[in-house]
Amino acid sequence: MITKEEIMEIVENYDQDNLSIATVCSHSSLQIFYGARQEGFRTIGICVKEPPRFYDAFPLAKPDEFIVVGSYKEIPDILAELRAKNAIVIPHGSFVEYMGGEAFAELAIPTFGNREVLEWESDREMEREWLEGAGIEMPRVVKPQEIDGPVMVKYHGAKGGRGFFIAKNYEEFQEHIDPNEKFTIQEFIVGTRYYLHFFYSPLREEGYKLSTGILEMLSMDRRVESNADEIFRLGSPKELEEAEIIPTYVVTGNVPLVARESLLPKIFNLGERVVEQSLELFGGMIGPFCLETVVTDKLEIKVFEISARIVAGTNIYLAGSPYSDLVEPNLSTGKRIAQEIKLASSMGQLDKILS
Amino acid sequence: MITKEEIMEIVENYDQDNLSIATVCSHSSLQIFYGARQEGFRTIGICVKEPPRFYDAFPLAKPDEFIVVGSYKEIPDILAELRAKNAIVIPHGSFVEYMGGEAFAELAIPTFGNREVLEWESDREMEREWLEGAGIEMPRVVKPQEIDGPVMVKYHGAKGGRGFFIAKNYEEFQEHIDPNEKFTIQEFIVGTRYYLHFFYSPLREEGYKLSTGILEMLSMDRRVESNADEIFRLGSPKELEEAEIIPTYVVTGNVPLVARESLLPKIFNLGERVVEQSLELFGGMIGPFCLETVVTDKLEIKVFEISARIVAGTNIYLAGSPYSDLVEPNLSTGKRIAQEIKLASSMGQLDKILS
Amino acid sequence: MITKEEIMEIVENYDQDNLSIATVCSHSSLQIFYGARQEGFRTIGICVKEPPRFYDAFPLAKPDEFIVVGSYKEIPDILAELRAKNAIVIPHGSFVEYMGGEAFAELAIPTFGNREVLEWESDREMEREWLEGAGIEMPRVVKPQEIDGPVMVKYHGAKGGRGFFIAKNYEEFQEHIDPNEKFTIQEFIVGTRYYLHFFYSPLREEGYKLSTGILEMLSMDRRVESNADEIFRLGSPKELEEAEIIPTYVVTGNVPLVARESLLPKIFNLGERVVEQSLELFGGMIGPFCLETVVTDKLEIKVFEISARIVAGTNIYLAGSPYSDLVEPNLSTGKRIAQEIKLASSMGQLDKILS
Repeated sequence: MITKEEIMEIVENYDQDNLSIATVCSHSSLQIFYGARQEGFRTIGICVKEPPRFYDAFPLAKPDEFIVVGSYKEIPDILAELRAKNAIVIPHGSFVEYMGGEAFAELAIPTFGNREVLEWESDREMEREWLEGAGIEMPRVVKPQEIDGPVMVKYHGAKGGRGFFIAKNYEEFQEHIDPNEKFTIQEFIVGTRYYLHFFYSPLREEGYKLSTGILEMLSMDRRVESNADEIFRLGSPKELEEAEIIPTYVVTGNVPLVARESLLPKIFNLGERVVEQSLELFGGMIGPFCLETVVTDKLEIKVFEISARIVAGTNIYLAGSPYSDLVEPNLSTGKRIAQEIKLASSMGQLDKILS
Repeated sequence: MITKEEIMEIVENYDQDNLSIATVCSHSSLQIFYGARQEGFRTIGICVKEPPRFYDAFPLAKPDEFIVVGSYKEIPDILAELRAKNAIVIPHGSFVEYMGGEAFAELAIPTFGNREVLEWESDREMEREWLEGAGIEMPRVVKPQEIDGPVMVKYHGAKGGRGFFIAKNYEEFQEHIDPNEKFTIQEFIVGTRYYLHFFYSPLREEGYKLSTGILEMLSMDRRVESNADEIFRLGSPKELEEAEIIPTYVVTGNVPLVARESLLPKIFNLGERVVEQSLELFGGMIGPFCLETVVTDKLEIKVFEISARIVAGTNIYLAGSPYSDLVEPNLSTGKRIAQEIKLASSMGQLDKILS
Repeated sequence: MITKEEIMEIVENYDQDNLSIATVCSHSSLQIFYGARQEGFRTIGICVKEPPRFYDAFPLAKPDEFIVVGSYKEIPDILAELRAKNAIVIPHGSFVEYMGGEAFAELAIPTFGNREVLEWESDREMEREWLEGAGIEMPRVVKPQEIDGPVMVKYHGAKGGRGFFIAKNYEEFQEHIDPNEKFTIQEFIVGTRYYLHFFYSPLREEGYKLSTGILEMLSMDRRVESNADEIFRLGSPKELEEAEIIPTYVVTGNVPLVARESLLPKIFNLGERVVEQSLELFGGMIGPFCLETVVTDKLEIKVFEISARIVAGTNIYLAGSPYSDLVEPNLSTGKRIAQEIKLASSMGQLDKILS
């Protein structure tokens, strides 16, 4: 991975009164560009082959300019151009996925957040070490003979919502499992899903204080998963199986929601633990992150995954959410990112938020 | 119950130019404090043991001060302090639940709304007398031998979304019922749930006029119930039963929604009947209330419950809803409550809205 | 159908500095009136028997005046009055349904949009000719013997969400079909529903350019269907059938949602093709339209229907959506319609958007 020193050397050569914000044209880019512009930054869209036409329909979010690459693999070739424009890159899920984590880690360009989080997040076992080390309750990983309730079975190499199945008990597991494939079995938590959008600022001092910096909760969403979310219209899992129709969990969009207020202490506690542990393990996860949770009927919150950057569920809240509006009216996560960069720049502390 | 006269004696000793708004730190308190502050009130959070830290993350909703109690049972001990601060208390569901209805009824402090509604709302039979007396259609209560379609069976002492079961017909009822428990059987209305957030103002004159005052419809939500709302992923009710997994109906949050406009005349008619009947029965239900309904595929609206105060579903709409925005941009129920207190105070008619 | 020339003759006699906007008091009228008023138009509500009282509760959307008819069939009788008020009529789904398409087509009053779309949209076969001619993927229509997966079967004369059934395969189809009724069989697309709200402007020049004019995507919703959306709580389709309970698909309301950003190029492509084809076939579909789609787990978008005017799903977004906010903060479809009329009037090109 490129070192912090190398990145800060680049930043020192930047015209810090003319920073620009760049990201790949997908995922949450409309929100990132819109927010950056609201805070007065120039914006740069990195796109493949040609600028996507849909930005023309959203004038307030259209980047000031595009840099075109032949494929995401060529992003390393445009770094000099990005640096010449004093660009800070905002990574999002698709950005990292398209480039590959390893290539992303090496990019000689200032990126928002701490790149070290990548390895902790992308490896299932390190992720579990991090979260459980923080005292977070996750669904248990079980062996076949330990199955004593509903489980989610995931084949290795499963991608993007396919290659999973749910079994209500050991019998169903046995009936469905393909013994020729490698798989992992996880306790299936029965409840309702909440995706919690946090923001960790190492710079702000007023707010929900952590050992250093503050924690914000900006919004929540529930992912819409195709075909799982509407397939009940066709039949129950068992009936579908007999008809050889397979439930899948591919995210196609997001719906807004709020959690009952009495859950907020637990929610902040989760966010706090995860950040504090990240500070200990790898110097801290900076900026937006998402805890993917299930709330049970005992009002427990189980975390099944973490995303250590902006998630697409925040796209619902371009003009504020029932939570972020209490920080500042109309605040989006995209705008919040831009504010953090502006603050760091004005404090001369860009090293605290870039890597 | 404390009398109106006693309450108004307290109010007469208040510095009415320096009223403050107080509530218990839970449920919809962020919205209540935010709205109160928008209307220029000082705010007081009543909390157990210590101020919840999560308010630090929501500066626009953080109360100006906290009053700490050892437990909710001690709220009667802080009334002198609240009175010294010219406090008007806003009751919400958790407030009443935590304290107990009887203790709440006796509090020697001005509360927003009419406390007499409590007994009508908390007793299932009085609630039914009120609503059916208003000409509202509720799910029928049936005896076992009368079951001729889907039913919801509720064991006595069932709490918070547990201790219910749904049966499609008499056979299923018989299969499931525990004859050693007391239970009530209600017709299960097949349809989609809408929670309608109304506001009754005895003071405003312009609007949807009732025999006295006006009726507003500020928003709607659908409650997210754990685990019922996502358990279909695991199996159908019958399949779950075989696996001994039990559906529950614990509210974990809320999603926004709107109803088709052609339902509005019916919706207002329901709100109107309920308020008019409350005026006759006990002097009127003041301020926010919620009708919990099911809309059938014949576009009938059946009411299965009423909440006679602010409900947590309004938390989605801190910055306005598709309905409240047509009253005034960015209007929340919390803000609307504060407006009503301000109006009453300026008209010298606090007796009309406090008890 | 009344000719464009006849309509433009009426318009030429209008006082174009004092246009008013009229619609039938239902469906999306609150939004239409609110938006019209925001753009400075006088508003006229056409209602049956008496003005609906619910407008009193929404002062910002209440029309400036009402014109009362005995039944929707009498709308032709009030045209002189509407013309005297320089009225432009905004058709919506209920408007056309209540009057009947043929009667609507003949109305000697300027209406927003192109009336020729009506016949293309109301006839299932012409609709399919239009959409498939545009290269849009629709669910296949199949014959009984061709059923090779899930299908939706619709009896002729089915209305408003009733008279459908879903079968997982040929066996189920055979089991359920009533051979005495006429029916159509359509492939059932397994996925999640998205209702995409577009706007086609023949006048604006900046934006997502089409061969003439521009395309906007203002919002998305998912319809709430009673009883299909919550009936899983009672049982699976098979279990319900045994209990003789029938799923229905009557729209009772709408929930907001967003689609993943990577779907936007496809989404705009769909909108573009449909408009371009409409320009070729019948001079173009003007203003708001909605593509009713299913997004599959392969991230394909299948279109099962088109509505060639404002849909009620836009009612959620009275004060802006995560998409329209990027065109202009707080923009609703109702406001957008009013803007288009204002622009056309100022450009002297009302003929481009009226018929």
